[in-house]
Amino acid sequence: MAAVNQVYIAVIGAGGVGKCFLNQLQGLASRRPSPKLSLCYISTSRKALYNVDYTPVSLEGVTESLAASTQAPPPLPQVIDYLAAAPAKVVLIDNTSSQDVADAYPLALSRGLSIVTPNKKAFSGSYKLWQDIFTAAATSGAKVYHESSVGAGLPVISTLKDLVETGDKVTKIEGVFSGTMSFLFNSFAPTEGQGGKWSEEVKKAKALGYTEPDPRDDLNGLDVARKLTILARLAGLPVESPTSFPVQSLIPKELEACSSGDEFLDKLPAFDQQMEDTKAAAEKAGKVVRFVGSIDVATQQVKVGLEQFDHSHPIASLKGSDNIISFYTERYGSNPLIIQGAGAGGEVTAMGVTGDLIKVLSQIA
Amino acid sequence: MAAVNQVYIAVIGAGGVGKCFLNQLQGLASRRPSPKLSLCYISTSRKALYNVDYTPVSLEGVTESLAASTQAPPPLPQVIDYLAAAPAKVVLIDNTSSQDVADAYPLALSRGLSIVTPNKKAFSGSYKLWQDIFTAAATSGAKVYHESSVGAGLPVISTLKDLVETGDKVTKIEGVFSGTMSFLFNSFAPTEGQGGKWSEEVKKAKALGYTEPDPRDDLNGLDVARKLTILARLAGLPVESPTSFPVQSLIPKELEACSSGDEFLDKLPAFDQQMEDTKAAAEKAGKVVRFVGSIDVATQQVKVGLEQFDHSHPIASLKGSDNIISFYTERYGSNPLIIQGAGAGGEVTAMGVTGDLIKVLSQIA
Repeated sequence: MAAVNQVYIAVIGAGGVGKCFLNQLQGLASRRPSPKLSLCYISTSRKALYNVDYTPVSLEGVTESLAASTQAPPPLPQVIDYLAAAPAKVVLIDNTSSQDVADAYPLALSRGLSIVTPNKKAFSGSYKLWQDIFTAAATSGAKVYHESSVGAGLPVISTLKDLVETGDKVTKIEGVFSGTMSFLFNSFAPTEGQGGKWSEEVKKAKALGYTEPDPRDDLNGLDVARKLTILARLAGLPVESPTSFPVQSLIPKELEACSSGDEFLDKLPAFDQQMEDTKAAAEKAGKVVRFVGSIDVATQQVKVGLEQFDHSHPIASLKGSDNIISFYTERYGSNPLIIQGAGAGGEVTAMGVTGDLIKVLSQIA
Repeated sequence: MAAVNQVYIAVIGAGGVGKCFLNQLQGLASRRPSPKLSLCYISTSRKALYNVDYTPVSLEGVTESLAASTQAPPPLPQVIDYLAAAPAKVVLIDNTSSQDVADAYPLALSRGLSIVTPNKKAFSGSYKLWQDIFTAAATSGAKVYHESSVGAGLPVISTLKDLVETGDKVTKIEGVFSGTMSFLFNSFAPTEGQGGKWSEEVKKAKALGYTEPDPRDDLNGLDVARKLTILARLAGLPVESPTSFPVQSLIPKELEACSSGDEFLDKLPAFDQQMEDTKAAAEKAGKVVRFVGSIDVATQQVKVGLEQFDHSHPIASLKGSDNIISFYTERYGSNPLIIQGAGAGGEVTAMGVTGDLIKVLSQIA
């Protein structure tokens, strides 16, 4: 029996973003009487909480209940079977960064489950997975939204989709797509004042929680390359993978083999002069150096790496760990449409997820 | 007999924005096979084109057909009757800036017609009209979208709605909301160089088509006050009208009574010293003067007028006739979420309308 005006929510992942999302979901459910939102499944990599008869799991204290659960998460195909048989529509929220979960999207979508996620892996992996996902969604009518996969809660993906779908021609996309890189270069090569040594700025960023546990996971540029892959595909370029275009790594060759992030940080000061030279070259030209990504749609060129900018350029004058994304289009002419603000953090990432969920609900409920 | 997978589009207004929209609509209809979009009504203030049996009006050369039409537009209640009886769902696009059309929204919505519009009048008039519109929509389930009523195609309203609906607390909204004012102050008080005389900048802006036919319609601040009214209401403040908060007019008292825009422009040079003094005062403080609007949500203060900004502030370094809108929120912390770009012009305004239409279609078709 299909329940009227009810939507089931299934959540995979209860880490930093996941916890913030669960709070926001609780707020959303309490503010909106219709459709009634019921949590029918939640899991981490080791634990799960659900009832075979779809009796909702209470959102009140759900992270504690989950921690106390003795259920292990079933294999993904089994979870999808369970959700596809639910007596109402289901939105699956993937708050992990797991490739395995991403690989299951085509199956989930083909079974009618809508998907909302900040997980970049599904949209920046192989081009075949991208195609499989959107073909499955188009065929079943299930929805798939991933605003937070680029720039967290900033309206980056929705804006690009609006531009494309309304028939504008996007000519170029350029910006700072990593909060970590933003923080590092805003401190290392500020438009005013001197800035510290590169290795010290990396250590500071790590201490402040702005980097991954191993900072090389930020400095290799792959995170930015993944985001560029997503935007380039949305702009119509069939980018094969995040490694199919030039990506500049800021990890010195000699330190790639370090066995740990700590060893890397210990040895990094010996390479400060390289970055110092890069900064000095920019200064000599009256500019500052920034780590940016860009997509030239006409020439189909995507690239990630260091570039120089005038002090008055919006990319140069960015603050803190903010992202900035500029869309150059035919309609907007010489001045781009610019979106700027925090592009990382649990609450703003979860906000993008919650915002997407609201959009899906408006279409399926 | 209800047609399957078809949506009727009715368009009121075929001026600058209207013509651009009709082009975009034609492109949209050709790119998207489903739902099938059929133009069932189009009118200007003097002419109309429609068939009583709902046979679609061809989008090909529609402005020429409309110009050649001998039908006069029926009274609005009659148009609404006609549309409400259509054999499929209807989206009414109001591309006018007419208060009369805006006043008919509650009736149209209550009859199940969805509305998409750049017309500010409906959302910045009396608070009662605002309430009537959203009550009618909530009751009938019809949709109402008006992205282009603030910042043209920039994602301003959608972003504010996302912030509010996901449970963020908006504390302050600030920005440059008028392309005309942006152009005038970026030229009159640039961050680099000198800038011209105020009256000459106003004349130049008019010659470039950046002002209304009578520039006083920009300089009185009412256009900005209307946009602030809309954003303040979306942020939860029950603002009574665009004249219920302080709005600084840049029209010298002595010139309010001029009988024409030309007479105003002729006499304006005699008042250049006032603006020169304002500029000098800002310069003395190392700042530049800009015409901004701001909403302080906590203190419920809305205001429009001149303020001083540091040269490094994003509002000071705006280019051309761009708008900039900063959202300060609890989640975004000290650095606001910023949206920037062209906030006026036929194509980008029509783009906001087309983007809204796509959102409505995803929900009703």
